[in-house]
Amino acid sequence: MRRTLILLSAFFLSAVGAKAGVWETNCAGCHNGVVAPTKSSLLSKFHTKREFMAKVREMVTQGKMPPGLSYGKAARELFGAKGAVHHSGKGLKKRVAAHKATKVASASDPYAKYKKFFKPLPALPPIPADNSLTPEKVKLGKMLYYDPRLSRSKLISCNTCHNIALGGDDNQKTSLGDHWKTGGRNAPTTLNSGFLKVQFWDGRAPTLEEQAKGPLQAHVEMNSTPEIVVRRLKAIPEYVKLFKKAFPGEKDPITFENVVKAIAAFERTLNTPNSPFQRYLLGDTNALTKEQKEGMALFVKYGCTACHNGPVLSDGRFHRLKWNNDTGRYRVTKNPADKYKFRTPQLLNVAVTAPYFHDGSVNSLKKAVKIMAEKELGKKLTDDEAKKIADFLRSLTGEVPLEARVLPQLPGNNPR
Amino acid sequence: MRRTLILLSAFFLSAVGAKAGVWETNCAGCHNGVVAPTKSSLLSKFHTKREFMAKVREMVTQGKMPPGLSYGKAARELFGAKGAVHHSGKGLKKRVAAHKATKVASASDPYAKYKKFFKPLPALPPIPADNSLTPEKVKLGKMLYYDPRLSRSKLISCNTCHNIALGGDDNQKTSLGDHWKTGGRNAPTTLNSGFLKVQFWDGRAPTLEEQAKGPLQAHVEMNSTPEIVVRRLKAIPEYVKLFKKAFPGEKDPITFENVVKAIAAFERTLNTPNSPFQRYLLGDTNALTKEQKEGMALFVKYGCTACHNGPVLSDGRFHRLKWNNDTGRYRVTKNPADKYKFRTPQLLNVAVTAPYFHDGSVNSLKKAVKIMAEKELGKKLTDDEAKKIADFLRSLTGEVPLEARVLPQLPGNNPR
Repeated sequence: MRRTLILLSAFFLSAVGAKAGVWETNCAGCHNGVVAPTKSSLLSKFHTKREFMAKVREMVTQGKMPPGLSYGKAARELFGAKGAVHHSGKGLKKRVAAHKATKVASASDPYAKYKKFFKPLPALPPIPADNSLTPEKVKLGKMLYYDPRLSRSKLISCNTCHNIALGGDDNQKTSLGDHWKTGGRNAPTTLNSGFLKVQFWDGRAPTLEEQAKGPLQAHVEMNSTPEIVVRRLKAIPEYVKLFKKAFPGEKDPITFENVVKAIAAFERTLNTPNSPFQRYLLGDTNALTKEQKEGMALFVKYGCTACHNGPVLSDGRFHRLKWNNDTGRYRVTKNPADKYKFRTPQLLNVAVTAPYFHDGSVNSLKKAVKIMAEKELGKKLTDDEAKKIADFLRSLTGEVPLEARVLPQLPGNNPR
Repeated sequence: MRRTLILLSAFFLSAVGAKAGVWETNCAGCHNGVVAPTKSSLLSKFHTKREFMAKVREMVTQGKMPPGLSYGKAARELFGAKGAVHHSGKGLKKRVAAHKATKVASASDPYAKYKKFFKPLPALPPIPADNSLTPEKVKLGKMLYYDPRLSRSKLISCNTCHNIALGGDDNQKTSLGDHWKTGGRNAPTTLNSGFLKVQFWDGRAPTLEEQAKGPLQAHVEMNSTPEIVVRRLKAIPEYVKLFKKAFPGEKDPITFENVVKAIAAFERTLNTPNSPFQRYLLGDTNALTKEQKEGMALFVKYGCTACHNGPVLSDGRFHRLKWNNDTGRYRVTKNPADKYKFRTPQLLNVAVTAPYFHDGSVNSLKKAVKIMAEKELGKKLTDDEAKKIADFLRSLTGEVPLEARVLPQLPGNNPR
């Protein structure tokens, strides 16, 4: 009720136009109704400065709007210092009615309005046209994922560092690999990784297929070679049969390319759509605790969603985090603008994938939240706020599908 | 029919008594009907020299009869040089009828008579009175078995070296452990290990509980300590709850003793009773191929069953195998008689647990069979014989219960 009053009074108190200034100088050029929506069109769409700024952040991080155009000042011009609500006259009654209806529908859950900043996880991620997700391929991929014989030592499998029992990663700051060497960065989870637009902290692999080639060959990880992998698999009759089934019609199906295709196919099934938060998004109002809902609201209000958006709460884009000497994306592109940039990590199952950051230097989820708010958003969170956001993040822990968790019974490798 | 004729003619041709000699000198003293069965009682029980000698070997290796008493000679005295069949007069008709009945029943499978040298695997192994096998304990034990945080590095779990996907062991000659150090002996499978009378190659642990304490603390394996294990588990709230459920009524249930109790309880569920051979023993005549049945017959005929007997084909006793400088049991007892002695390994799932022997130096099952026949039985097998026995051993591969193969979803370890 109070909010409705504010909405209405804001409408009557404010004029549609704001004083000329930052908007005219920086924005009006493009926002001409052709290149981008006009001011009045924006004002009819966004009712508060906060909503408006969330969209601005999203557009900037997606590269759809240029950075550094004093958006905060422009927003103050449009919405006033207090972020008051503006409306154009057209269709006001309709919108007020719609707003009231929303209020009634979500009466039992005052946080329902934040749902729109998130997207439920689809059952499966996008599937590349050249790697169909057949049951035969997924079955084979699962065996390969769990088979340590793909590594030079025959000790390390994909599952060693991306342990399905441990949230799809290990518990290491940075992974331990061949000859007990340590990797350079914290292992990200394979769960829901098919939804990421690029793979690795620095995004150097565009697909899961390309990603899988990395750890298999990295000296500090599985330290294998395509030749070793192919030779070992060809020596095991059951694998020969399974590759034929998974890649029908191919004359010589046991190839390194097919190995990573099968692994990637399996990984695309490692999705966890049934977390409390996902259930909440789909309508189960009681799936979140009050603290988690408050945390969700803070997560939106403080603009975490500017980068942590989409079905896995990652925009899949690169953002600067000067944290240690790791220059991140720059190592891949050699473009100075990419220095210290890292792909936004997804947040599904984040509570079970400590430690955090690309060097795994932070153990506490609450601490990680505080650091991110300060470093990326310039906000100093109170302990209570950070705790609530961490509580919200805990609601993102889902369940790995049973089928993916059933260990295969791998064929023996003793010669006849 | 031919066999029946031999049986009958043997009876009429032979007298009940054999000439005095080795039997009188070495055996008759104990075989007086009080300490041990009399000669005529033995002759009414064993119909051929081969049956008789198999029992003798079993008794000797179990320590129930003294070694080195010229049993072969005594057997020749009792059964004649050709191992002819003897009978006492009593109940002859009955026995002949029973024998005929067996012939009819097993007409379709001439190898059925070898079944009696084996025992079907019970559903569960013996359970110690002080470690009841409750579902709560098994559930907890499974989590601990798969949790690498029990190791100092947080990388190595029980499942690393006793990988349920790989027949319950690794693929290593000797296991790779903490800081990439190698263990001294080949890792035995945990599958069906509850049926073994003692644990480890040298039998230094009497129970699975005691066994579990070893790798957890060994410097070249998990390199943990009871303190590390207890501290880490106590820091994870979900484990606190689960220990309370698994050990109800205990004030402080997270102890090292309870950790190994839970792991052992889980391990007692890792049984594979559904192999082709087990199905064969239970009546499914077609569960084995002809080659496997021939291999089984050779396995019995050559006396492999003298040591490889009981439900997991291990007598659980120690036998000499001078193979390399490893003195085996001697290291535990310091008794010179135990030099180079090792506990008979079980044979269930042997086809998927290469490489073989306590140093993992042999990759081929066929080769392992040949070596054992020569070293332990003084028999040089032909290639064909060894192949058939290896084929038989392949029929011992069973399926791990689904429940044990479903990876747990372990609680995260990030502090609140």
